[in-house]
Amino acid sequence: MAKITPLSGFPEWLPADRLVEQHVIDVFREVAELHGFANIETRAVEPMKQLLRKGEIDKEVYVVSRLHAEDGEDAPAADGEDRRLGLHFDLTVPLARYVLENQGRLEFPFRRYQVQKVWRGERPQDGRFREFYQADLDIIGQNALPAHMDADVAIVMADILRRLPLPGGFRMAVNNRKLSEAVFTALGLTDTPAVLRELDKIAKIGPEEVRRQLMEKAGATGEQADGCLAFAQIRAGADDLADRIAALGLSSDDIDAAVEELAYVIRTVDASAPGVCEADLSIARGLDYYTGTVVETFVEGHEDLGSICSGGRYDTLAADRRFTYPGVGLSIGLSRLVSRLVTRQAAVPTRSVPTAVLVIVESEQERLRSTEIARELRERGIAAEVSPTSAKFGKQIRYADRRGIPFVWFPSEDGGTTGDVKDIRSGEQVQADARTWEIPAEDARVRITTAE
Amino acid sequence: MAKITPLSGFPEWLPADRLVEQHVIDVFREVAELHGFANIETRAVEPMKQLLRKGEIDKEVYVVSRLHAEDGEDAPAADGEDRRLGLHFDLTVPLARYVLENQGRLEFPFRRYQVQKVWRGERPQDGRFREFYQADLDIIGQNALPAHMDADVAIVMADILRRLPLPGGFRMAVNNRKLSEAVFTALGLTDTPAVLRELDKIAKIGPEEVRRQLMEKAGATGEQADGCLAFAQIRAGADDLADRIAALGLSSDDIDAAVEELAYVIRTVDASAPGVCEADLSIARGLDYYTGTVVETFVEGHEDLGSICSGGRYDTLAADRRFTYPGVGLSIGLSRLVSRLVTRQAAVPTRSVPTAVLVIVESEQERLRSTEIARELRERGIAAEVSPTSAKFGKQIRYADRRGIPFVWFPSEDGGTTGDVKDIRSGEQVQADARTWEIPAEDARVRITTAE
Repeated sequence: MAKITPLSGFPEWLPADRLVEQHVIDVFREVAELHGFANIETRAVEPMKQLLRKGEIDKEVYVVSRLHAEDGEDAPAADGEDRRLGLHFDLTVPLARYVLENQGRLEFPFRRYQVQKVWRGERPQDGRFREFYQADLDIIGQNALPAHMDADVAIVMADILRRLPLPGGFRMAVNNRKLSEAVFTALGLTDTPAVLRELDKIAKIGPEEVRRQLMEKAGATGEQADGCLAFAQIRAGADDLADRIAALGLSSDDIDAAVEELAYVIRTVDASAPGVCEADLSIARGLDYYTGTVVETFVEGHEDLGSICSGGRYDTLAADRRFTYPGVGLSIGLSRLVSRLVTRQAAVPTRSVPTAVLVIVESEQERLRSTEIARELRERGIAAEVSPTSAKFGKQIRYADRRGIPFVWFPSEDGGTTGDVKDIRSGEQVQADARTWEIPAEDARVRITTAE
Repeated sequence: MAKITPLSGFPEWLPADRLVEQHVIDVFREVAELHGFANIETRAVEPMKQLLRKGEIDKEVYVVSRLHAEDGEDAPAADGEDRRLGLHFDLTVPLARYVLENQGRLEFPFRRYQVQKVWRGERPQDGRFREFYQADLDIIGQNALPAHMDADVAIVMADILRRLPLPGGFRMAVNNRKLSEAVFTALGLTDTPAVLRELDKIAKIGPEEVRRQLMEKAGATGEQADGCLAFAQIRAGADDLADRIAALGLSSDDIDAAVEELAYVIRTVDASAPGVCEADLSIARGLDYYTGTVVETFVEGHEDLGSICSGGRYDTLAADRRFTYPGVGLSIGLSRLVSRLVTRQAAVPTRSVPTAVLVIVESEQERLRSTEIARELRERGIAAEVSPTSAKFGKQIRYADRRGIPFVWFPSEDGGTTGDVKDIRSGEQVQADARTWEIPAEDARVRITTAE
């Protein structure tokens, strides 16, 4: 038998850790649905020609091919057309394709959430995963999408994040591409993407080095570079944002409009989730398809994780002959977050299995009675399993103990559904009937507790 | 922009159909957890050398490779060793590998369920999917696994199936490989796999043709072939199984032991789920790793779907230097089942989005008030969204109507969280406060209804 070794970059969890991941996904789903988002899943593969349209990330794609493909169907470019398939590397490219493919059957604005694995051929030695969960939510319009949707999406994410077992508080940092662009224009700079690219490095290389690179690579004078840095260092609430921008000594109608748009998002999120959201004008976001609001989110004390939830507004997610599809969305890098929760034991399940009650088996002849008691418990929603053996009671209790199962049930000798239930943590034991026994609410389901 | 076309064999659902799929997965999860099964997920890829160990299915595997792989790491056989990765084609091969890799950190017997997509390079023109969900549950022992576990697993599956929105009743057909083998031996036949292979074709090619092939390919005399066919045509309950076997005029200790084992499974399932399970001695199962109980499950009136839930006992799922890992498990071909439910409209969601209440926006200036009402509703678990526009009320109500959202909320003019709630199906309208309004239980969540 071949030696079994883990594959670097393809994380797998033990059952107890998977409970944390399931919990994070459950919270995401529950809150997204409370806000009226519908779920979809897209196939894992997309045509390579769709995946490679954004040149910058082509090196990360996994190509798939059938081991015994016929007729050259998987060849890179038979008759000049690339028919190959690749694994999706995000959920945005598939969403754009799904919207175009189904536009006649969807209602717009289309509110959808999607939690699926994605694959990237990154170097795993950089601490990056090659297979990981993304959890996305987006609102997609047909031709138009009101600006207040940006706030809607941020509110849902704040609602999700406050219910997650994060190891610290979170900070949602918001900027608006239009504000950056209007300010750079007022400073006399025209190459917005280049300026954003350099400003994006402040946290990594520091303002001094960014200043130098702005002058070298974005065509800025020293004064313009200083203006950019002063802008990027602004942190403000909805009420003082306009004053802080005015203090830069710049003004234009575009600046005023963008300040108003950004302040609206922060004010609206603040009304729903006070104190988590601020304007942070250093936020740039690498990808160039954002056209308005941009968001990054950091866990306090875990800033080294980078942004755990990012996204923004893109005026053209997709387009066909008749319509354009603007969107706004946010995405959680779920596996990286779960990995942190699990490895730091920041979130821990109350037990490693769903079972709440182990029904003891006195002898193999009596197994059916134990099975019947377990069935009665399950009918009332109590997770129960029957002991796999009729070994000595001590051994059966240890089976429960090793898995963290809180209760064992000793069937009474006179048959039926009665017996003694023992809480093996406290040793407390009571007589009960499986048809009426109430399990303490905190033991009914596995809960995820946050370590202090 | 490239033309967008669906990929044959890679099904994708619209949001309303995805609700049916989610429901089926939710039921599977809920029942599996009630029975104490823990969830795991395994990575999508396995080393090709693991995937190709069973020669018969190698043609179905998808190979994955990084577009810009370095150092020949994805080459078929650099230095003679195949380092390539392939997408898993089932959840059993990954389970075996996961158990070996983590055996020191798992508690045995290990009760796990797993719901993930698998990929097979089948010809999609045969109506088969290339990407589909499998939902598996298995119990894995270390060196030993008591026989009653076979019944345990069948009970869980019966419990899942009775809660699914199936378009007909279901029939769980059970056999035992040891019984088949003991009977064939008593008939004087030695090549059990060959006999099983031929008997497996009865439904497809009829008993006459199977009789001929038993003689041609399995070395049977006419009398032996008749004996096999008489055996395979037995359908029996727990109580008459022994008599039906005895009527074949055969007897041996092995037959008696296997009859007892099979009758135990049927009797035990019957106690939990009366009337769904019977001995069906034609059940053979193609795969040769089964060593005892084998199960197939059919939906009444949809026998053309084939078995929707299959599995059985395998005495050696995996082995390492110290232990063998026997298992018993069942697997639902979930996508094929969901596809049938959806295309025949056998299961239909009560609405296409999770939203229960659309909060009307009187004017954009009043949007924050509507947002606040939606927030209050969500705090109490009621899924609510705010109208995307402040268009005329009729237009906003049509937004709800098109999505099947049952209630619209008109904020009252005096502010706060009060307003009028209208059931747009009945037209009934009441005054309410978002902090106290109770939604009818049947409208709180999307439900899946079964068509008659």
